[in-house]
Amino acid sequence: MVLVPGGSLMTRTPEEGRALALTLARHTIHNIQPDLDILKGGRPNYASTPDSLIDAARVVAIEFQTIAAANGYWRG
Amino acid sequence: MVLVPGGSLMTRTPEEGRALALTLARHTIHNIQPDLDILKGGRPNYASTPDSLIDAARVVAIEFQTIAAANGYWRG
Amino acid sequence: MVLVPGGSLMTRTPEEGRALALTLARHTIHNIQPDLDILKGGRPNYASTPDSLIDAARVVAIEFQTIAAANGYWRG
Amino acid sequence: MVLVPGGSLMTRTPEEGRALALTLARHTIHNIQPDLDILKGGRPNYASTPDSLIDAARVVAIEFQTIAAANGYWRG
Amino acid sequence: MVLVPGGSLMTRTPEEGRALALTLARHTIHNIQPDLDILKGGRPNYASTPDSLIDAARVVAIEFQTIAAANGYWRG
Amino acid sequence: MVLVPGGSLMTRTPEEGRALALTLARHTIHNIQPDLDILKGGRPNYASTPDSLIDAARVVAIEFQTIAAANGYWRG
Repeated sequence: MVLVPGGSLMTRTPEEGRALALTLARHTIHNIQPDLDILKGGRPNYASTPDSLIDAARVVAIEFQTIAAANGYWRG
Repeated sequence: MVLVPGGSLMTRTPEEGRALALTLARHTIHNIQPDLDILKGGRPNYASTPDSLIDAARVVAIEFQTIAAANGYWRG
Repeated sequence: MVLVPGGSLMTRTPEEGRALALTLARHTIHNIQPDLDILKGGRPNYASTPDSLIDAARVVAIEFQTIAAANGYWRG
Repeated sequence: MVLVPGGSLMTRTPEEGRALALTLARHTIHNIQPDLDILKGGRPNYASTPDSLIDAARVVAIEFQTIAAANGYWRG
Repeated sequence: MVLVPGGSLMTRTPEEGRALALTLARHTIHNIQPDLDILKGGRPNYASTPDSLIDAARVVAIEFQTIAAANGYWRG
Repeated sequence: MVLVPGGSLMTRTPEEGRALALTLARHTIHNIQPDLDILKGGRPNYASTPDSLIDAARVVAIEFQTIAAANGYWRG
């Protein structure tokens, strides 16, 4: 299973960088738990629990730090 | 659903950068849980639980690190 | 509600930077939960629970990373 | 037990860097708990618990920050 | 109550930097909970709970990142 | 009790840097809880709980960020 779809941290926009952050987090989780049925089975409960959503948002925030730095914060 | 409203990490002031940090965190959560009714349903409990508020504040702090770095800490 | 009182990350001393870190964290929480009575109601329990205090200290530590970097670590 | 298989943070691609992040996290855990049977015994439960998966993904995200910085974000 | 005893992030050695990291974390907590008896009352339980100790160690690790960067990692 | 055994963040290899990260985390915890019997008493339970191991791995990851940066990521 691929961990970095596209094989690069470079994106054209912050929006695409943000989407990549979500993708990286999801692929990590899918890599640890390859059984998609188990992942889908846990989703309804987790996605309706505020604390779990906040925790997920934190992972995305950390991944985005890396991607944003890689892209020079899309300043240019 | 857009992840980075405005499409940029650049803001004029720390205040606007802080608001963007809150926005980014909220849009991540909304992206994971698109059903707004479920999000609103969980809010009264989470927003009156100190531990949940602290966790949310941590996500905002991490997002803000990225935004502040992107803006050169608004030093100029 | 203002998120960055004073509108700047610049402070004269580490001590003031540390105070700003506490302020930023508190204003985030107040922004998410605008009802001050609810915030005050949760405080006695949270402020006497070591795990909650440690969690709060972590948020302050993260905010301070940003502020310290913004101020060049007050090296000069 | 080796902590950094290969002995280097340098990788050719983000994909390999991501794999190394997972490896570093696993080797830390294996170092703390050398008994592989205990580790395997806990896995079915942890790997089907969304909150645990999110926590694991956070560790990988942090390790990846280091590896990505070490590799100059594979920009070249 | 002072937040940064000594008023500086500069230390002569990593050892002193590490001690400052512990001090900063403790002063944050003492600032949030000024009643020392409450803090001392919670300590026996928290200091004998591995998960709480790990959480505390994480705060120290984050504070130390800031102090180490401030001191140029004591490379010279 | 010493917090930074060896008194330096400099190591010759990533492997040694990783070992130092584990050491720093352990010395923090030992500093907060000086009674080694209490630490050892909690270990069997914590070291066989996946969530606790993941939390411990996160602390190591954060310490390693600092050490890796201090050593220029052992690039040379």
